[in-house]
Amino acid sequence: MSSELFDPIFGMSAVAAAMDDRAWLAALCETETALARACARAGIVELADALEVGAECERLAAGEVGDLGRQSVAGGNPVIPLVATLRERVRERAGDSAAAAVHRGATSQDVMDTALMLLTQRALGILLTDLGGCADTAAALAGEHRELLMAGRTLSQQALPTTFGALAAGWGAGLDHHLGTLTRLRAELPVQLGGAAGTLSVLHPHGLEVRAALADELGLADPGRVWHTDRTVITDLAGALGGAAATIAKVATDVDLLAQSELGELHEGAPGGSSAMAHKKNPIAAITARAAAAQAPGLVATLLGAAPELQRGAGPWHAEWPAYSALLCAVGGAAARLRASLSGLHVDAEAMGRHLDELAEFTNTTDAGHAPELVDRYLEGRTR
Amino acid sequence: MSSELFDPIFGMSAVAAAMDDRAWLAALCETETALARACARAGIVELADALEVGAECERLAAGEVGDLGRQSVAGGNPVIPLVATLRERVRERAGDSAAAAVHRGATSQDVMDTALMLLTQRALGILLTDLGGCADTAAALAGEHRELLMAGRTLSQQALPTTFGALAAGWGAGLDHHLGTLTRLRAELPVQLGGAAGTLSVLHPHGLEVRAALADELGLADPGRVWHTDRTVITDLAGALGGAAATIAKVATDVDLLAQSELGELHEGAPGGSSAMAHKKNPIAAITARAAAAQAPGLVATLLGAAPELQRGAGPWHAEWPAYSALLCAVGGAAARLRASLSGLHVDAEAMGRHLDELAEFTNTTDAGHAPELVDRYLEGRTR
Amino acid sequence: MSSELFDPIFGMSAVAAAMDDRAWLAALCETETALARACARAGIVELADALEVGAECERLAAGEVGDLGRQSVAGGNPVIPLVATLRERVRERAGDSAAAAVHRGATSQDVMDTALMLLTQRALGILLTDLGGCADTAAALAGEHRELLMAGRTLSQQALPTTFGALAAGWGAGLDHHLGTLTRLRAELPVQLGGAAGTLSVLHPHGLEVRAALADELGLADPGRVWHTDRTVITDLAGALGGAAATIAKVATDVDLLAQSELGELHEGAPGGSSAMAHKKNPIAAITARAAAAQAPGLVATLLGAAPELQRGAGPWHAEWPAYSALLCAVGGAAARLRASLSGLHVDAEAMGRHLDELAEFTNTTDAGHAPELVDRYLEGRTR
Amino acid sequence: MSSELFDPIFGMSAVAAAMDDRAWLAALCETETALARACARAGIVELADALEVGAECERLAAGEVGDLGRQSVAGGNPVIPLVATLRERVRERAGDSAAAAVHRGATSQDVMDTALMLLTQRALGILLTDLGGCADTAAALAGEHRELLMAGRTLSQQALPTTFGALAAGWGAGLDHHLGTLTRLRAELPVQLGGAAGTLSVLHPHGLEVRAALADELGLADPGRVWHTDRTVITDLAGALGGAAATIAKVATDVDLLAQSELGELHEGAPGGSSAMAHKKNPIAAITARAAAAQAPGLVATLLGAAPELQRGAGPWHAEWPAYSALLCAVGGAAARLRASLSGLHVDAEAMGRHLDELAEFTNTTDAGHAPELVDRYLEGRTR
Repeated sequence: MSSELFDPIFGMSAVAAAMDDRAWLAALCETETALARACARAGIVELADALEVGAECERLAAGEVGDLGRQSVAGGNPVIPLVATLRERVRERAGDSAAAAVHRGATSQDVMDTALMLLTQRALGILLTDLGGCADTAAALAGEHRELLMAGRTLSQQALPTTFGALAAGWGAGLDHHLGTLTRLRAELPVQLGGAAGTLSVLHPHGLEVRAALADELGLADPGRVWHTDRTVITDLAGALGGAAATIAKVATDVDLLAQSELGELHEGAPGGSSAMAHKKNPIAAITARAAAAQAPGLVATLLGAAPELQRGAGPWHAEWPAYSALLCAVGGAAARLRASLSGLHVDAEAMGRHLDELAEFTNTTDAGHAPELVDRYLEGRTR
Repeated sequence: MSSELFDPIFGMSAVAAAMDDRAWLAALCETETALARACARAGIVELADALEVGAECERLAAGEVGDLGRQSVAGGNPVIPLVATLRERVRERAGDSAAAAVHRGATSQDVMDTALMLLTQRALGILLTDLGGCADTAAALAGEHRELLMAGRTLSQQALPTTFGALAAGWGAGLDHHLGTLTRLRAELPVQLGGAAGTLSVLHPHGLEVRAALADELGLADPGRVWHTDRTVITDLAGALGGAAATIAKVATDVDLLAQSELGELHEGAPGGSSAMAHKKNPIAAITARAAAAQAPGLVATLLGAAPELQRGAGPWHAEWPAYSALLCAVGGAAARLRASLSGLHVDAEAMGRHLDELAEFTNTTDAGHAPELVDRYLEGRTR
Repeated sequence: MSSELFDPIFGMSAVAAAMDDRAWLAALCETETALARACARAGIVELADALEVGAECERLAAGEVGDLGRQSVAGGNPVIPLVATLRERVRERAGDSAAAAVHRGATSQDVMDTALMLLTQRALGILLTDLGGCADTAAALAGEHRELLMAGRTLSQQALPTTFGALAAGWGAGLDHHLGTLTRLRAELPVQLGGAAGTLSVLHPHGLEVRAALADELGLADPGRVWHTDRTVITDLAGALGGAAATIAKVATDVDLLAQSELGELHEGAPGGSSAMAHKKNPIAAITARAAAAQAPGLVATLLGAAPELQRGAGPWHAEWPAYSALLCAVGGAAARLRASLSGLHVDAEAMGRHLDELAEFTNTTDAGHAPELVDRYLEGRTR
Repeated sequence: MSSELFDPIFGMSAVAAAMDDRAWLAALCETETALARACARAGIVELADALEVGAECERLAAGEVGDLGRQSVAGGNPVIPLVATLRERVRERAGDSAAAAVHRGATSQDVMDTALMLLTQRALGILLTDLGGCADTAAALAGEHRELLMAGRTLSQQALPTTFGALAAGWGAGLDHHLGTLTRLRAELPVQLGGAAGTLSVLHPHGLEVRAALADELGLADPGRVWHTDRTVITDLAGALGGAAATIAKVATDVDLLAQSELGELHEGAPGGSSAMAHKKNPIAAITARAAAAQAPGLVATLLGAAPELQRGAGPWHAEWPAYSALLCAVGGAAARLRASLSGLHVDAEAMGRHLDELAEFTNTTDAGHAPELVDRYLEGRTR
């Protein structure tokens, strides 16, 4: 689900790489390794066997993806053929006891869900760095331009004066909010372990212990429950990513509007040119941030629309993979492009002043009220 | 945005009534009253004048909605004509000083947003009662049927045994999660006060004080910022409501599947009949819960897709009203219908046993592993 | 699903009235009348009995909606209690034979679907009048301003000259396209008649004849098939309405952008003012057209997401009612508001010239290429 | 936007390959070649120069994608760096006159939009083959099982008898409908040519002639207008693809329901197994068809939500690329998986009979009314 041609345009390259086929394969293998080790810690398998499993997983993780993809059609997910291959190879190399340590007590969804959380942890890390960069830049702009007067515009019309700092503070407050939510969710990403019907029956009576150990091995949380068909983990992430996209779209739209030829109050540091029209200063980073963010609402809707049946979704579960990956990439890309836009932003105080003068003809005021104070409150309240 | 014909079917009557035209008019008037009182507390207007404003608001709240609707077209929101009428009537009754106390320092969006939060507080209250009822019933079912064996079904096929208690515990865990999120968001619903360009300029230097007093008057939170075009309040609510709808849809789908003629493991207490087909036991409450919940993802997408421009959205703001109202009504209705479904649920242990026997022919096991223990953990972890 | 307070703002009053509770009740009764008459034409019921049914339907259509709504909860749709009441009253008034002519061979969904098509026929009629008004106004603007030079703007920057006529021609071409599609779909709106399981078994061997007669009675098409769970009729309409909304949003966005204070190239004839800021000329009709149109994509997604099970959707069918009604109202409202915007549009040639001069400093051209010719081609190609 | 790991699971491999980076690069180069030849046909450039452009395009099409992707960030689309490279190389090899024949009179969007139509033509070809396969198989099933009685099920309950042929006829009618719509849209896919501001100014007065020649060169239609910001071409395709997905989802859901362990009326020819649970016959093709189709509604919403500003969308245009590609892949994949499901479908008449007997206890009928006749009508009406 990645493209060398388009991912860079939408700022998605880094996040997409963290969610690509190789990353998936690695995370699946990492999960199988951790499961074997967790079973060893619970005394269900021999440590030596678990180590054999881990060694083979490492080799598999370096192997072919295409074959695995083709083999995945029959069962509808890549874990089934991966486990078959893994078990066979471990058997060849280390015998039946080690082979029996493979995928012990797990079902495909356990491995897919847990791997998805590992991928999310990494992809969100990238996303949060870019989103944090946006927020910090907004804060810097707010502080720097705390008192820089500009025309406030409502319903597309000049209304009353404000300051650019107050506008940037509004951007920053929104960005900070989503940073907080996504950081919290990232810290709580759980493993999944339920077995074929969500009862951990094969691992009984050690199932809960294995789950705790699995979480520990992978640096993920123990959710304290099975969530095969309780997808609140996914829908919480979807909602938070969708909210972040909405705020990114708002900020990028403001940049785009203020960069219009006739306003010219903002310019990107590296606007996109046109070979034929050298005078154009297209705010390309903001434009592509808008485009990336625009993918989010529909993808969130897809994720919210999945109602997995009984003990495993017959379609709703599988439907999460493309939508969720696309959502993480879109929002990650939007954050990266917005960061590029904001970090090189030129603020044209003269243009702002000119429009303010036009406005003052009607309003007889250049008073921005509490605007600077709103900036101060915002900056004081930042926890970053 | 309410219907006497369809709202009952979708369980929306109570929530819809809490968000209907009269409720809106009342909340707008309440907000104007509270603003005048808040200004009085800040010493900006005379208390006597504020009381006049409040008295007139009370009369207006009892008045005609249709005229106000027609007058709202020109400015695009009902606050503009409401304030014009209010100011005129206060002037007639109490003079210019009192008239000047009307809508002091506010813009239409301040009053609309704040009123929307008041409506949300009430509508969410209804919704949370029904969602809580669902959760409590799920918990009761989980406890009661902790060890009742049934066939776990994955990808539409019988897989391995589980217990009905474990299934119900999964329902309950999801429902509890959304209860927690929505309860928290409800406790944080903020007032909006920013004035024409979000600078509180008319109220300067008393703006922040007035905002705090306004929050206090209305029993809402002081957000510590203006959020005219930082819509995280709305998108957080949208995401949480969408998540709740997804879980409701999951539970209702399970009921619907287990109530199929050929399964018959669950029956609603008052299934919908058919005049022509007396043998049918349509699980109508679950079916209409699914239908109501199915409205949510698209509405969430609409709310996430709004990127309000600069100091006020030229369309994105207005677009929130129908989508947000519809979302609250849909999820509220879905919760009410699911509650009706769960609260009368008949569990047919005999049918479960019959299918378990079929399954046991293949699996040679009736072991449900950790299922009862998962129920215990869930029940112990409940905070309600 | 209508609001006296908000429908006018979004231009929805007329369409909403055509889809409101009373309209639904009338359409349901009309369908039952037509069915009885169709059965009489097929010789299945006595004409005298059919006339009794029709007479009672007329009385019921004038009756209470609220009671019917409450009675509809049990079965999940209003047809079940409506038919029960109808049958009882016909029996009381005209005896058993006439009572047996009520709802002959039909299932609730037959009546709901057919009534929905009747409502659609009327609501689309209103919508098409407004959309046609938009298209005709766009055509008139295109013709009138065929050669009026203005700055073409791409990616928010002035690019090269075009003419306002060419811009308006682009609007008109899109609007005409949707007019054509929706007009065609309206002409093909079908009745539904399948009976309890879609086999027309009760009417056998006269089922197809009754269906044809029913279509004839109601001025709808005979679909030549049952479509209980083949919802292409609904999804085609949804797609076409969504497309129309997208074009309306595009035109309204252009008006909003060109009406910005700093551009001032367009002004609405009756811009919305602000009591506090008399200088503002908010393009409120375009703004509310955008807001109404913004409801559409999410609602279309809801309608496309319904996959009705086997012979009747257990939720997916019911889910259509609120989403489809809201979609028709939203697009109808958007068309009405855009029509208001375009029909009073002031074109400020002087402002256009001023910006063109700015552009010419960079481009050294005021040549608009084929722009006037593109207008001519568009106008020649119009079939209205 | 492709994945070796997941595309096979969702049946997307073939469609995704037709829309991948290499396919994009080839289509862009093909469009530039065709444009140069079209200009030659209009006498604007020398044929020899056009041939040089074409030769260089062929070389570029075989070249590196990654570099082009990185170079595309600055301007926000791949055409800008592609044209720069192309022009430079043509100049080196064939001089200034030939270099001046590159990208004559075009803007990036002309080439992107036209290339997208070329890709659509090919991808839709694949999709239509699979969708046609689904439809033909449904027709064969309808004919073969015209009189095979089964229980009709409404609202999850057994209702009255129907035949499996009638159910399959309903599937086929829906599939045929979308085949017709998409085939028609495919035949009308237009080139785009408007130049920088949509006026074809550089090509004036030969613009319309060049556009016609371009269409002829590429085997696409001459749209008779510029559609840079009139996206009805895209929204029509989106609506039709969304409709097709809805029907695919409906059919796949039916297969999934009828394949449940307790029903067992249908089985896929190659059901997905489970290493641990050999008794399971997961209808994996239907399940993954559902999952692929479930991507569609949200993606359609994204495409309907784009309202491109003035002469070029500042985000809305770019946002189409990922959403539209994903939509084509999703629906193409869903069609491929459904075809796999239907083509190997085992119909268990004995299971159908058993359930029919259960139903007959209540209904005292095994009459399927017009069901066989409905099959006949459907088969007679097929135009394929």
